[in-house]
Amino acid sequence: MSLSEIAAVNRQFEDAARKGDLDRLASLYTSDAIALPPDGPVVKGRDAIKQMWGTVAQQLGLKEVQLQTLDFEQAGDTGCEVGEATLALASGTAVAKFVVVWKKIDGQWRLHRDIWNTKGA
Amino acid sequence: MSLSEIAAVNRQFEDAARKGDLDRLASLYTSDAIALPPDGPVVKGRDAIKQMWGTVAQQLGLKEVQLQTLDFEQAGDTGCEVGEATLALASGTAVAKFVVVWKKIDGQWRLHRDIWNTKGA
Repeated sequence: MSLSEIAAVNRQFEDAARKGDLDRLASLYTSDAIALPPDGPVVKGRDAIKQMWGTVAQQLGLKEVQLQTLDFEQAGDTGCEVGEATLALASGTAVAKFVVVWKKIDGQWRLHRDIWNTKGA
Repeated sequence: MSLSEIAAVNRQFEDAARKGDLDRLASLYTSDAIALPPDGPVVKGRDAIKQMWGTVAQQLGLKEVQLQTLDFEQAGDTGCEVGEATLALASGTAVAKFVVVWKKIDGQWRLHRDIWNTKGA
């Protein structure tokens, strides 16, 4: 069941974020992944995404991320997740909404497209 | 070729936005589409998306949208587009990045998941 496989990768993502392990975080993306963080340019590829997460984590004082899947649809080796991320930051708690397009590569689900924005009040 | 089919729907989207035709704009989404506008909650379904666009267009003073596809990957009857939207607003020009997950329904490509954020300086 792909939803449970994706949940398992999301737990790895949370764990890597908590530990500040940028290499592990980046390894959860496909090699040709694209991330679209708010207030910044399009970020292409694992190395650039690793750098982006380092900058974002430092700027926000990111301590912890909790990912919650609201919706998941699969089409073969790709899947589309809609979810919410609760972020523990230096300034307090923030909630973001996200869409992740997943791709199964060599039997493992990886983040292929990752975009988020703020949920607001 | 699906990319040209999607480009055609994007031109319809631009035209509907320019004319403030919210019914037509909403009709370009699937009936169970999910939109994730910045600074707001998750918006589910065509009616709610129509309302959301009415509110967003009014709040921003939206005059025109230009959509540019940066990347498109297809998997059967779904496709994932990464792009940029240039918005003519009452306050000037703004650029947003977006991911749209497309779904082919009854032979027509429709926006199924739609999320965007600001590009920043």
